[in-house]
Amino acid sequence: MPKLDPDSAPLKTGSIYPAPYDAMMAGRSSRRLGQAGGLTQFGVNLVTLEPGALSSLRHWHQEEDEFVWVTEGRLTLIEDHGETGDAPGDCAAFPAGNPNGHHFANRTGQLARFLVVGTKSPREVATYSDVDMRVEIDGATASFTRRDGSPLAGRTECPSAARCLRSRNRIPSPSGPVRSSCLDHRSR
Amino acid sequence: MPKLDPDSAPLKTGSIYPAPYDAMMAGRSSRRLGQAGGLTQFGVNLVTLEPGALSSLRHWHQEEDEFVWVTEGRLTLIEDHGETGDAPGDCAAFPAGNPNGHHFANRTGQLARFLVVGTKSPREVATYSDVDMRVEIDGATASFTRRDGSPLAGRTECPSAARCLRSRNRIPSPSGPVRSSCLDHRSR
Repeated sequence: MPKLDPDSAPLKTGSIYPAPYDAMMAGRSSRRLGQAGGLTQFGVNLVTLEPGALSSLRHWHQEEDEFVWVTEGRLTLIEDHGETGDAPGDCAAFPAGNPNGHHFANRTGQLARFLVVGTKSPREVATYSDVDMRVEIDGATASFTRRDGSPLAGRTECPSAARCLRSRNRIPSPSGPVRSSCLDHRSR
Repeated sequence: MPKLDPDSAPLKTGSIYPAPYDAMMAGRSSRRLGQAGGLTQFGVNLVTLEPGALSSLRHWHQEEDEFVWVTEGRLTLIEDHGETGDAPGDCAAFPAGNPNGHHFANRTGQLARFLVVGTKSPREVATYSDVDMRVEIDGATASFTRRDGSPLAGRTECPSAARCLRSRNRIPSPSGPVRSSCLDHRSR
């Protein structure tokens, strides 16, 4: 049946960001609706943010369009032009290649949820706006580096391995970029 | 600003289906959110169905993934396996190439709305489940024929020309397929 049960869709928790950024993603989880429905061309996730949680580090995508639609609670959208409060039915679009870093923050005391849709490009580069980091995605491998491509300092072991369903395939690379075959860092 | 105002997004009304099917789309309109936000890789439309309206003729896509999320009111999803009632927060996915024809009907006395997301493929074929019709899309041109490719009978002039923003480029072709450069027939 094409109708989906969000509560039965694959659940993603945790983060594969390298430390110390992984810890900043506490309180975020998402249901992979598109995956549950067999979609391959774009991802659709229903993301839950507990009070105080962030949707991601603020970032922008080089190759992939992105769309968000708030479904529950109140969220704050933070991007280069400032902040806006969002309620159910509010939405925003982020075209590929536009270097406007963005994320949601839940600054309320209640759960909030939003839908996020993003193209699934075989190759992608996402750049983080507030920290010196970027990620290159090539097929099933994601590599975190500084913006200039040099290695990130800090630990390379996935701190949320137990929660990352695909973490078994992660490739530690202490002397180079932080690499992973887990694409769960993407918000969709 | 990436935040969108749905009420200011481009409005699509009417239908470019050939007669008599165009008249069956009365009461349907949509706001082109993805277009308003500059997205090009997938479309995002917020579709409004007045009481009694249909989202489209029941159809399936050969090349394009599709996802729907009900945002307001009550809708009935009709597909090959039967019918399901949908309320806000209900959703469904239709992978490209799966010949499960589907559409929404608003059988209530109130407005209903849903989000629809679909890949924007340069070439596409959609097949209609309950009538002998298909449409081939090549770039900016859509050609309606019978399923075997033979011409459709009936008038070829767009009956909703006054409401179709792109109808000026429509190419009447009385002796062949019904052709149009207007892609507004797509539900996204």
